[in-house]
Amino acid sequence: MNSQTLKPYVIGLDLGGTNSVFGIVDSRGDIKATTAIKTQGFATVGDYVNAAVEALQIIIDQVGGMEKIKSMGIGAPNANYYKGTVEYAPNISWAHDCIVPLAGMFSERLGVPVAITNDANAAAIGEMTYGVARGMKNFIMLTLGTGVGSGIVVNGQLVYGSDGFAGELGHVIMRRENGRLCGCGRHGCLETYCSATGVARTAREFLAQSSEPSLLRSLDPEAITSLDVSLAAAKGDKLSQRVYRFTGNMLGEACADFMVFSSPEAFIFFGGLTKAGDLLMDPIKESFNRHVFSIYKDKAQFLVSGLDGSSAAVLGASAVGWDL
Amino acid sequence: MNSQTLKPYVIGLDLGGTNSVFGIVDSRGDIKATTAIKTQGFATVGDYVNAAVEALQIIIDQVGGMEKIKSMGIGAPNANYYKGTVEYAPNISWAHDCIVPLAGMFSERLGVPVAITNDANAAAIGEMTYGVARGMKNFIMLTLGTGVGSGIVVNGQLVYGSDGFAGELGHVIMRRENGRLCGCGRHGCLETYCSATGVARTAREFLAQSSEPSLLRSLDPEAITSLDVSLAAAKGDKLSQRVYRFTGNMLGEACADFMVFSSPEAFIFFGGLTKAGDLLMDPIKESFNRHVFSIYKDKAQFLVSGLDGSSAAVLGASAVGWDL
Repeated sequence: MNSQTLKPYVIGLDLGGTNSVFGIVDSRGDIKATTAIKTQGFATVGDYVNAAVEALQIIIDQVGGMEKIKSMGIGAPNANYYKGTVEYAPNISWAHDCIVPLAGMFSERLGVPVAITNDANAAAIGEMTYGVARGMKNFIMLTLGTGVGSGIVVNGQLVYGSDGFAGELGHVIMRRENGRLCGCGRHGCLETYCSATGVARTAREFLAQSSEPSLLRSLDPEAITSLDVSLAAAKGDKLSQRVYRFTGNMLGEACADFMVFSSPEAFIFFGGLTKAGDLLMDPIKESFNRHVFSIYKDKAQFLVSGLDGSSAAVLGASAVGWDL
Repeated sequence: MNSQTLKPYVIGLDLGGTNSVFGIVDSRGDIKATTAIKTQGFATVGDYVNAAVEALQIIIDQVGGMEKIKSMGIGAPNANYYKGTVEYAPNISWAHDCIVPLAGMFSERLGVPVAITNDANAAAIGEMTYGVARGMKNFIMLTLGTGVGSGIVVNGQLVYGSDGFAGELGHVIMRRENGRLCGCGRHGCLETYCSATGVARTAREFLAQSSEPSLLRSLDPEAITSLDVSLAAAKGDKLSQRVYRFTGNMLGEACADFMVFSSPEAFIFFGGLTKAGDLLMDPIKESFNRHVFSIYKDKAQFLVSGLDGSSAAVLGASAVGWDL
């Protein structure tokens, strides 16, 4: 009997700006039990961990107690894998102005090893463990949500870099002149164009630049979302279709640059924007082949995550725990 | 007695467009014997290998015969580590229109394992084995010669990617609008600006754009080299100094983008342009800190190769052999 049969489960925690979702997962990626708490509303990280452990205890008991749990993996914004910390996370009240040793705190309370990494890295590990990247040694995961996150796998290992913060591909500069202002304070970052908020921003720009008719004109410009744009595009709205072509075109250009770095066998896309399907993926592929250095032409696959959206983040987080 | 004492030497071959330089190297990086042949002038790769082995035999005998040789490492343009080949190398007559299994051919003739990789990767491995990158697990080597080459090390391993061709950082696009035409057929590649030829091109542009006095005006514009520009800059020539500031500024911008990928602890520069010293390195550092995503500020070192220029390429090639 090996240790996995003795301790068949790992706890995964998808720590988001709003909700913290917990799952107890087996080695096949089956989620045996889940629970959730609000992430915010705690004065300190200690209060957060107390509430989390209290909620966790119920589902731990459901699967047979802590003796069935091998370890815990956490996916969180601004997480540092090497140090086990969450550092200056702008959207988490108990971690926005400090460094919080979250992995160590959970480990102390639960008595098992705990690893933490950022959400996009967790998604990449989840994809490699349970998803479309099984068996791949070199791929790049791009998460297209409110921002653009990334997890880079080279030689079968996640790239953490010298400081634990490698893989911030949302912050390569795509437009060096007149680039859009980014939340990071610089201009022209990929995520100002190719995130959900970037798509809405592009739609507002296109609407302002012409008087071309569009289904989007019936909406309050400030309230337009990437989903509105993809729904309008699906109905044949030309302006909305151009927004996705623009977005896919830039993602293809970016992937062409990423290709010269690690020559991955696949780019895997995850997150809200991928719901647009071929509307986004077709221009990405077309633009990649048009922009890439010729030796890489047609060498990369462009895939959408194979994990169910609602559980993918928890699965990814749990996968971080298996390596412990 | 371990295998290194039994077989204390590795053969290194720096295969350049003009010369092929061979060295027999021990584990401390001491070159025990060297020889060289012309790279060109052979009708086939077979003729080249015959001439190489003939020349090698003399220095092999000098160090005690093949029983002292553990393996061989080759640094060559357009080399593929996985396949042991040189593929469509534009500047090598016997490999410019075909795929040549060079590693296998040398291995068959010498009876030892042979590994091959591109020259910039060899430089990175050399730096890690004998140079300023000893002990580093994450760094990026940039070779600034006729072109811009690169070797990327992540988690202590060279990044070869899925196809063996990863690490072509000279071909990231730095200027997407009105970028300079590159030998690769695209526009705006880093190497069109930050190679030795790029520096000469910048000097010609600056000379044409104004009538500012410059020591360079006494030269035939088409014959200006990066060395001319750095000599003039050292004499206080303002225009030449601006050429190096422009070049260093763009290298700093590029490194800022590379940083978000693998967060290396150092960028290491090698090749002709580094002879300009602080004239190049100061603007690189200044520009990097101005352009980089704030979480990476002041985290990377900017170093010049610690290997003696004349032997660095042979040492790098030999280091590729130690891993076999």
